[in-house]
Amino acid sequence: MNDIIARKKAGQKLTNEEIQKFVSGVTSGEIPDYQTSALLMAICFRGMDVEERSQLTLAMAASGKKLNFRTVKGRKADKHSTGGVGDKTSLILAPWLAAAGVKIPMISGRGLGFTGGTLDKLAAIPGYRSDYRAGKLRTLLKRNGCFIVGQTKDIAPADKKIYALRDVTATVDEMSLITASILSKKFAEDIDTLVMDVKCGSGAFMQNLGDARALAESIFDTANKAGLFTLCLVTQMDFPLGIYTGNAIETWEAREFCDPKNIYRAAAEKIYIKRAQLTAAEHLVAPLVEITIELAIALLDPHGAQKDITRAAALGNLFSLWDSGALKRHFSEWIAAQHGDETAFAEKATAILEKLAQNDAPETVAIYAPQAGYLTACDARALGNLMVELGAGRQRSADTIDDRVSLEMCATRGDAVDSQAPLCRIYKPHLSQPEREKVQHIATAAFTVSEIKPKAVKNILARL
Amino acid sequence: MNDIIARKKAGQKLTNEEIQKFVSGVTSGEIPDYQTSALLMAICFRGMDVEERSQLTLAMAASGKKLNFRTVKGRKADKHSTGGVGDKTSLILAPWLAAAGVKIPMISGRGLGFTGGTLDKLAAIPGYRSDYRAGKLRTLLKRNGCFIVGQTKDIAPADKKIYALRDVTATVDEMSLITASILSKKFAEDIDTLVMDVKCGSGAFMQNLGDARALAESIFDTANKAGLFTLCLVTQMDFPLGIYTGNAIETWEAREFCDPKNIYRAAAEKIYIKRAQLTAAEHLVAPLVEITIELAIALLDPHGAQKDITRAAALGNLFSLWDSGALKRHFSEWIAAQHGDETAFAEKATAILEKLAQNDAPETVAIYAPQAGYLTACDARALGNLMVELGAGRQRSADTIDDRVSLEMCATRGDAVDSQAPLCRIYKPHLSQPEREKVQHIATAAFTVSEIKPKAVKNILARL
Repeated sequence: MNDIIARKKAGQKLTNEEIQKFVSGVTSGEIPDYQTSALLMAICFRGMDVEERSQLTLAMAASGKKLNFRTVKGRKADKHSTGGVGDKTSLILAPWLAAAGVKIPMISGRGLGFTGGTLDKLAAIPGYRSDYRAGKLRTLLKRNGCFIVGQTKDIAPADKKIYALRDVTATVDEMSLITASILSKKFAEDIDTLVMDVKCGSGAFMQNLGDARALAESIFDTANKAGLFTLCLVTQMDFPLGIYTGNAIETWEAREFCDPKNIYRAAAEKIYIKRAQLTAAEHLVAPLVEITIELAIALLDPHGAQKDITRAAALGNLFSLWDSGALKRHFSEWIAAQHGDETAFAEKATAILEKLAQNDAPETVAIYAPQAGYLTACDARALGNLMVELGAGRQRSADTIDDRVSLEMCATRGDAVDSQAPLCRIYKPHLSQPEREKVQHIATAAFTVSEIKPKAVKNILARL
Repeated sequence: MNDIIARKKAGQKLTNEEIQKFVSGVTSGEIPDYQTSALLMAICFRGMDVEERSQLTLAMAASGKKLNFRTVKGRKADKHSTGGVGDKTSLILAPWLAAAGVKIPMISGRGLGFTGGTLDKLAAIPGYRSDYRAGKLRTLLKRNGCFIVGQTKDIAPADKKIYALRDVTATVDEMSLITASILSKKFAEDIDTLVMDVKCGSGAFMQNLGDARALAESIFDTANKAGLFTLCLVTQMDFPLGIYTGNAIETWEAREFCDPKNIYRAAAEKIYIKRAQLTAAEHLVAPLVEITIELAIALLDPHGAQKDITRAAALGNLFSLWDSGALKRHFSEWIAAQHGDETAFAEKATAILEKLAQNDAPETVAIYAPQAGYLTACDARALGNLMVELGAGRQRSADTIDDRVSLEMCATRGDAVDSQAPLCRIYKPHLSQPEREKVQHIATAAFTVSEIKPKAVKNILARL
């Protein structure tokens, strides 16, 4: 191991055998942590090329159990995001693609820092279960076409050990380690297609397009080199995605999205079909709508193995599943199959919506623009961190979450705002006076209002 | 600690507080090894400036007990070498400087890799003790003016822990870590002056002048910045230093050096006083003579706090102590004070010398030049490693040493050699036939003989 560290330190490329030896030694515990962390730091300075990255990915995936869905008919695909604020696309994509006949065996995580976690969102549905044995997962996938569950201990254990060390040795931010960590878990899912949503902006880990594009390229090159057909989108993540952020209310928004009678479908019609001017309400949901649909199109595989599926055909298919109620039905069936109680959840969500609707009620804070002008920027990371502090996420892994803590966006980039209509509202049960002041202070500072109307930005910043 | 690692990783300068926190956390065991090794690797890439180095040195020295010789009158000084092959200068310098009234509280180490260790050499003297409590060390220093003992566990424990980690994480070779490791132990000795012998060449850790000079500069700058008056010599280390290498026989050579009737004094006369042509025998010992005398002059403090001592006066003083027998007497008194039996040792050494004198006796191998020519180069590292393999040093820390294993140099750089007179002889008790063949093969390959007489090289390559 000392030689492996020395070779990487000297900038040399590690061989497949060396990478195997490292990963199996970490998994078995034979390699002590101090040697692992020294190698990780050397990798931070020297990097790994795409071949080393793909070998590391495969070795970490092979360090534990791999799911096996050979007996499940149909193409299997998954979407993975690098994490954002208000990102509930997974909860819409899983049933939508299932309705389209694509199998989605989705293994998700809990929230990390300022970003929400899909599992935390689903945990807001009373009864929802996210721990199943492999045999039951196969049954869920066959019957419902999708599942969303948590990561078990035996999936990529090498990644768990290495991530725990990276977290305490300032080696989290290195591109090859990030790439292999993300992909190793996806390679254990037995999927044919991966779609990566690399988020970019104030509410993402990658704050500028250069970094986000570099990560997307790394994931794209590594995954495809390692034999998994992968597409990457780099998507805008500066305003919270959609109207709502907060575990219960985000899941609710995903459910609302599935219903074609709602605003999301109307916005989609103007964006994709009529190419017409959006109302303010449609404008607010447009990024969620566009990013979700673009990810769904990619999951339908343009243009991987399914060469005959055009973008137009994929879009047509998605709209018809939406409009026919198939998407909404698949959402409900999936939740029910995982023991979620949708009726109880609807009551819970309705209670939150009522609280949010009251500007400046005892538990709700409305945030106003300091002066009239155009809303030009949002520090979504600051809002995400504020939500975590209010109990929507964990500061330590042992913290409990209050899934009712909610943020409702009332305006978005480019909207004309004044000091009368709120920019957003934040609800927290049992909000104290010091908390109220803190929310006022931090949330107000998170928005930039200026006299000049900002240019529109794209929601899809790059495609690979 | 994560922040400290992250700051160093980003190339930032650590504050005094951060360095203190790191060293005290390592000492107490609060900082886990995996964070320490990650920081060490980050330091390998980012380095430390002279202020960080001096803070690290002081913090590591303060991590354990410091000796306290305030009640011992006189200036206290020490010499430290980066390690070479056949380097017995400490065994001559300690009694010489003691004779000159300078107190030498020398804490030495065991052998490391291909280089010998002063403690291993002294252990060849029957009865010699190298472990004393602080109170007894003070008494030894007062009475004899010098001692040479081993490092106790409570001196610079942070350095011990950090070195053990560096050894297994490929982080041994970084300049600031090397500097602080060497100096932390010297700062625990309560000395006024330090003279560093940075060795350079095939038989040293630093193989070229650039690296050796960089280390000398680092030690010079760091030690002086941290408040210890320090001089550095960079000295030639490509042929084994002196005639003999091997624990017992090297110690014997040091004793022979102290006697003014021997060849070393004759060589010194021609080098320093008469500037006359050396005989072949004098030429062989010239590097040991010159390097020892130059280190002794530096230890007499030209031109630190003792501004009135000129180089000429220092040299005159050294010669008169040599010629008067004071050096030899101080050698014997020091050995006796540490319970060494010089008579028994003389018998042991005489027995080895008899074995070495027999070319190709059952336990002795003589190495000859493959053809007539000039001896131009020597791979002293290969010879040092060969000696270790034969039992003169340890390959693992638990190995026992045979202190009789010996190498006698019969020629040195620039000497005209032919295939009749040996280049060197190697003696090992119970030498087996396969060992004989190995010695023949490796030792022969360690010498380069060519038709062109090589240029003379300097023994003192740089002074700081």
